[in-house]
Amino acid sequence: MATQKLLLLPGDGIGVEVMAEVKRLIAFLNKTGLTAFETEEDLVGGAAYDAHGKAISDAAMGLAQAADAVMFGAVGGPKWADVPYAARPEAGLLRLRKDLGLFANLRPAVCYPALADASSLKRELVEGLDIMIVRELTGGVYFGEPKEIVTLENGEKRAVDTQVYTTHEIERIARVAFDLAKVRGNLVHSSEKHNVMKSGVLWKQVVTAVHKAEYPEVKLEHILADNCGMQLVRTPKQFDVIVCDNLFGDMLSDVAAMLTGSLGMLPSASLGATDPTTGKRKAMYEPVHGSAPDIAGRGLANPIATLASFGMALRYSFGLAEAADRLDAAIAAALDEGLRTKDIASAGQNAVSTSEMGSAVLKAL
Amino acid sequence: MATQKLLLLPGDGIGVEVMAEVKRLIAFLNKTGLTAFETEEDLVGGAAYDAHGKAISDAAMGLAQAADAVMFGAVGGPKWADVPYAARPEAGLLRLRKDLGLFANLRPAVCYPALADASSLKRELVEGLDIMIVRELTGGVYFGEPKEIVTLENGEKRAVDTQVYTTHEIERIARVAFDLAKVRGNLVHSSEKHNVMKSGVLWKQVVTAVHKAEYPEVKLEHILADNCGMQLVRTPKQFDVIVCDNLFGDMLSDVAAMLTGSLGMLPSASLGATDPTTGKRKAMYEPVHGSAPDIAGRGLANPIATLASFGMALRYSFGLAEAADRLDAAIAAALDEGLRTKDIASAGQNAVSTSEMGSAVLKAL
Ligand SMILES: CC(C)[C@H](C(=O)O)[C@@H](O)C(=O)O
Ligand SMILES: CC(C)[C@H](C(=O)O)[C@@H](O)C(=O)O
Repeated sequence: MATQKLLLLPGDGIGVEVMAEVKRLIAFLNKTGLTAFETEEDLVGGAAYDAHGKAISDAAMGLAQAADAVMFGAVGGPKWADVPYAARPEAGLLRLRKDLGLFANLRPAVCYPALADASSLKRELVEGLDIMIVRELTGGVYFGEPKEIVTLENGEKRAVDTQVYTTHEIERIARVAFDLAKVRGNLVHSSEKHNVMKSGVLWKQVVTAVHKAEYPEVKLEHILADNCGMQLVRTPKQFDVIVCDNLFGDMLSDVAAMLTGSLGMLPSASLGATDPTTGKRKAMYEPVHGSAPDIAGRGLANPIATLASFGMALRYSFGLAEAADRLDAAIAAALDEGLRTKDIASAGQNAVSTSEMGSAVLKAL
Repeated sequence: MATQKLLLLPGDGIGVEVMAEVKRLIAFLNKTGLTAFETEEDLVGGAAYDAHGKAISDAAMGLAQAADAVMFGAVGGPKWADVPYAARPEAGLLRLRKDLGLFANLRPAVCYPALADASSLKRELVEGLDIMIVRELTGGVYFGEPKEIVTLENGEKRAVDTQVYTTHEIERIARVAFDLAKVRGNLVHSSEKHNVMKSGVLWKQVVTAVHKAEYPEVKLEHILADNCGMQLVRTPKQFDVIVCDNLFGDMLSDVAAMLTGSLGMLPSASLGATDPTTGKRKAMYEPVHGSAPDIAGRGLANPIATLASFGMALRYSFGLAEAADRLDAAIAAALDEGLRTKDIASAGQNAVSTSEMGSAVLKAL
C-alpha cells in the first residue's frame, strides 16, 4: 500500500491535547494495516511565533504543500495578544488556507441525539439537525486589498478592508454546495446581502446561473445573511446546505455550531481544487472550536471534533469512506456509553478526560 | 405648546398596516393635549419607486430633513425584485440613514415575560433578557467606496465592496454605547474581527482609548464577532450593551432579536449627532421586522414593534419619558390580558388582528 503523507499542526492551547488523540488513532490504524500514514509535525500559531517570530515558518508551509493532507489543531491565546498584526497566531491559519488554495470550507452542524439536551434551543428544534455550511475560504474581506490603516492629515486614522469576489470564485464554491446537496437533502440556501453589497449582487447572479445551467434538479433558495442568522435560531431544521462567503460563513457557521450544543464535537474540512493531472486536491482538517486557553493543559478538552475531522480526512482525502463510517460509529458508541467530556456533560455529571474519551473511541473501533 | 413635526414613511407591505396604528395613537395623544404633533406622510421603498422611479423622492428627503423625527415602516417585496440596484426599495432606507447622519442605531433585544415561551431558546436562558445592541449605521461596508461590479478582460466579473472606518466614526458610536451602559448594566461588549480585519484593529484600539479616557467606570469586554454570535445563542444574559459596526450589527441584532421570540415586538431608534446650536438631533424610528410580504394586507401584522418605536421617539426626540413609560405599560397590559397577534400566538390560540391589538393598547393607555 502506498504511504499517505500527513502533516500535523497541533498549534496552541488545547490544539496540542486533542491532536495527541489523533496520533494514537493514526498509530492504531497503521497497526491494523488498513493505512500507511507517514506523519510529520510542525509548529503553527503562537507556538511558531515563539520559535520563529512568525505564525508559520516557510519550512512548515513547504511540508504542508507536500502533504496529502494537513491536520490542524487550533491557534491563539492571550499570551500573543500584543504580537505584531502580521505575526498574530491567526496569520498562520490564514496563510495555510490561502497558499494551499483551500477555497471550500465544509462545516457540518449536526446535533448528536445523545446531546440534544445540551443545546440552548428547545429539544424539538434541534433533534436530528443536520446542516452543512459551505463557506468560501480564500476570498472576500479576509484577503482583499487594500487592507490597511492610514493616518490622515488631521491626525485621525482610517482603516480599510476590501471585500472582493470574482465570477470564478463564486462558481466553484457554488458547485461544491450543489454537489453536496445532491447526496444530502437536495436543498441549497445561498446567503448574501445583495440589498447592500455589490459582491452580494454578483454572488446571487452567479449562483443562480450555475444552478440553472448545471443543477436544475437541486432546490435553490436565496436568503439574506441577516435573515439566515435569524432563521437558524428560529427553525434550523429548514436548512440542508447553506453556501456563503468567507465572512458570513464565519458568523453563520459559529451560530449554527452553537445550536447543536456540541461545539466540542464538530469537525471541518477545507478543500482545494482537484488537480486535473494528478487527480489530487489539497486539504486541511480542523475542529470548529478554538484553542480555549481557559481550559488548556488540563486534560479537559473534548477530542471528538478533531477525531471527527480526521474522519473527514479519511473520507475526502483518502477515499476510506468505510473507515470513516466506522470512526463515526465509534464516536457515537462512546457517547452512547454515557461518556462525556466537560463541555458536553450535564450539570453534576462526572466528566472524563481528553485521553479517556480518546481511549473510549479507540476501544469502540 | 410648540408643535412637533413628524414625517411618517409607512413604506411597503405590513409597513402600511402597522403605521396606521401609530396614526391612531398620535391622534389620541394630540386629543389629550399632551402633544401637538403635526404629521406629514410620504412614500418610500417600492411604493416610491412605483410613483417616482426611485426609492425615495427628493421632496420626501426634504420633509425628512425638516422633521423633528421620522417614523419608518418597512420596505421591499418580491414585486420589486428586478428593479435597478440604485432604485431598489432598501436604497430609500439607506439614503435616509446616510443623508440624515443617523450614525447610532439602538436595537433593544428584550424578552417580554409574557412571551418567554415563544423563544426558540429554553425559557431560563431568555427570561428577563434585556440587551441593547448599538450598531454603527452610516459607515462600514454599507457605504464605502469603491462599491462596484466591473467586467474583466477575460469576460469574468469582479465585485468590490469597501469597509471603511475612521477614528471619529468609532469614537462617537463608542460614546453612545458607554452612555447607555451607564444607565443600564454598566457593561459594554465591543465586537469586531481584529484578527482578520484592519477596521477591527482600529475599532478595538479606539474603543479602548475612549473607554480609558472617558468611561473608566464602565466595564468593557472585547469579543470577536463570530464568538459574539455564538455566545448570544449560548448564554445571552451575559450581555448588556453590545457595540459593533454596521454589518456585524446587522447580523448580531437579528440573531439577538430572534432569541427573544418577539420579533414583531422589537423597536429601534436611529439617531444623529446633536446640533450644538439648536440642541436638536435628527432621528428615525422603525420596527426591527421587515415588510413581510407573505402576510401583508391581511391584518395579521403585529403593530407593537412600531408602536414601541414611537415610544422611543417620545423618549429620545421629544423628551416625553413619562408618556413613553405609559405607552410601554399599555403594551405590557395588552399582552397581560392575553391578546396575541399571529406572530406571537401559541399553537391553537386565537390571534387578534393588527387593529384589534392597536385598539387594546390605546384602551390601556
Ligand atoms: C481564527 C480565525 C482567523 C478564523 C476565521 O475568522 O476564519 C476562525 O474564526 C474560523 O472560523 O476558522
Ligand atoms: C433592509 C436592509 C438594507 C437593512 C440593513 O441591512 O441594514 C435591514 O436588514 C436592517 O437591519 O435594518
